[in-house]
Amino acid sequence: MSDLPHHVHLHEEGPREGFQIEPGPIVTADKVRFIEALAGTGLREVQCVSFVDPQRVPGMADAEAVAHAIRRREGVRYTGIWLNRRGMERALATPLDVAGALQTSASESFSLRNTGRDTAATLAEQRRTLAFCIERGIPIASGIVMTAFGCNIEGAVPVERVVARAADLVSLMEEHGLELPVLRLADTVGWANPNAIASVVGAVRERWPALRIGLHLHDTRGTAMANALMGLQMGVDTFDSTCAGLGGCPFAGHVGAAGNICTEDLAFMCEEMGIATGIDLDALVSCAHLAERIVGHPLPGKLMRGGTLGRWRH
Amino acid sequence: MSDLPHHVHLHEEGPREGFQIEPGPIVTADKVRFIEALAGTGLREVQCVSFVDPQRVPGMADAEAVAHAIRRREGVRYTGIWLNRRGMERALATPLDVAGALQTSASESFSLRNTGRDTAATLAEQRRTLAFCIERGIPIASGIVMTAFGCNIEGAVPVERVVARAADLVSLMEEHGLELPVLRLADTVGWANPNAIASVVGAVRERWPALRIGLHLHDTRGTAMANALMGLQMGVDTFDSTCAGLGGCPFAGHVGAAGNICTEDLAFMCEEMGIATGIDLDALVSCAHLAERIVGHPLPGKLMRGGTLGRWRH
Repeated sequence: MSDLPHHVHLHEEGPREGFQIEPGPIVTADKVRFIEALAGTGLREVQCVSFVDPQRVPGMADAEAVAHAIRRREGVRYTGIWLNRRGMERALATPLDVAGALQTSASESFSLRNTGRDTAATLAEQRRTLAFCIERGIPIASGIVMTAFGCNIEGAVPVERVVARAADLVSLMEEHGLELPVLRLADTVGWANPNAIASVVGAVRERWPALRIGLHLHDTRGTAMANALMGLQMGVDTFDSTCAGLGGCPFAGHVGAAGNICTEDLAFMCEEMGIATGIDLDALVSCAHLAERIVGHPLPGKLMRGGTLGRWRH
Repeated sequence: MSDLPHHVHLHEEGPREGFQIEPGPIVTADKVRFIEALAGTGLREVQCVSFVDPQRVPGMADAEAVAHAIRRREGVRYTGIWLNRRGMERALATPLDVAGALQTSASESFSLRNTGRDTAATLAEQRRTLAFCIERGIPIASGIVMTAFGCNIEGAVPVERVVARAADLVSLMEEHGLELPVLRLADTVGWANPNAIASVVGAVRERWPALRIGLHLHDTRGTAMANALMGLQMGVDTFDSTCAGLGGCPFAGHVGAAGNICTEDLAFMCEEMGIATGIDLDALVSCAHLAERIVGHPLPGKLMRGGTLGRWRH
């Protein structure tokens, strides 16, 4: 366990991943209230909205309104995502902390379904995105390889293909003399198991020893926390997660897509293991209860029901 | 990861742990149907009922009726539990596979609340139980240390105390020239984290290198699967679990006690990691859906919603 990090960065995606798939309309004020509460827990980065086609994702039609309404707290980054440059232009017109992300998918079929582009077209789009970011002075925050552990359309994904897609993104940056700050490996549809985490993270680390690796995990089949543990054991120190386990991927091609790994459950495990998160767990549990009230149905987080152990630990 | 076992034994406790805490009366025929379905999945051991005071646990008042109604399948052990010799006598009057278990708790306060006995009285009772079992030719299947990772009344539990309680049970057996077949460490109220699993399992193994260790995990705070992974990495090859994540401890002294680690989620993770379980995952997922229909509310299992990956794996 010598590779366990001392600190982890948890990138909260609940407002975006969670609210974009909820069937009921969630009012803008509730989204803002949730984002502001999350920013008061010690989380340093909250992904607030996605700038996508409101026809495809009606739950995000108020992305601009949310972005403008947030009362910002110092030291917290408020981010958004998009699938193309048009979405990025929308983000740039808001007060959000806009940074570029280079995205690709280890499964070409998933990419086609998710974005309408094959691998080559995706890479060409990322090249244009990167050029645009450089021209506008926008930093690139990360590279993301989706379906890095398997896909419900293609099935298993060979490790070599994940490395090849990561190489695409690393090379794109190198063309401009830049380094990727972090490579996020996404278990978009919940295929990962701890051995797969070890294999893929290990292969990426072997190829690029200095590259920071992040994990984006879904709990579709119950393995998210075990996968996170394996990630921690491999030295991974940045994770995407969602408060209360909100979320799921609307384009994942299967019924019952489970949410992301739950932020407070993951933060609890890290803190209990002596890995600092900078998060006030009780405050985060309150956010999870708020999320349940907002969506109006039970969410999968466990710590919000079991309770923290802080009163015995301090 | 060199200590990963090649096979694991999953001891299904759903019918007992699950149904004993459900508020609504569950009809005997449904219990029997569920037990018979579980026994058809490849599980080798199903804990069916508890022989406890029907005043305290009304959901188990039909224990004898359930035990008599089961149509047995060859190669499967159908077991029950009890808290005292009176319960054991009740079990012996049924067709169940009766074996003794020596039980103690690392938390004296929990022991007092759960059984009304302190540590010394518990040990004295276990001594009588053992003598009774030897006299009647009943094998001892395991020793169990409850609250081995913490307790909602006392808080943290020192590793040395877990080892001391385990030593009580090992010594009891040695008084009769017997060896404990397996020592089960129970995270009765969901306090464990992966480091604690490593510490406690490591300390027990160091003291008794040849002693087989089992884990009984609850998912109260979302760490059960990560704790199981750490157990597997420490070479633990026997786990208690419940189909669909049924269960929870009615005497745990806190609201919202979550269920046990989910059998099919754990089995899925093991199989994906190349650790054989002998279980037909799709059949077990069907059992999980049956459990939900029987209890009439959602259960926490994930694989039952996410679906197995067998069609891509074989």
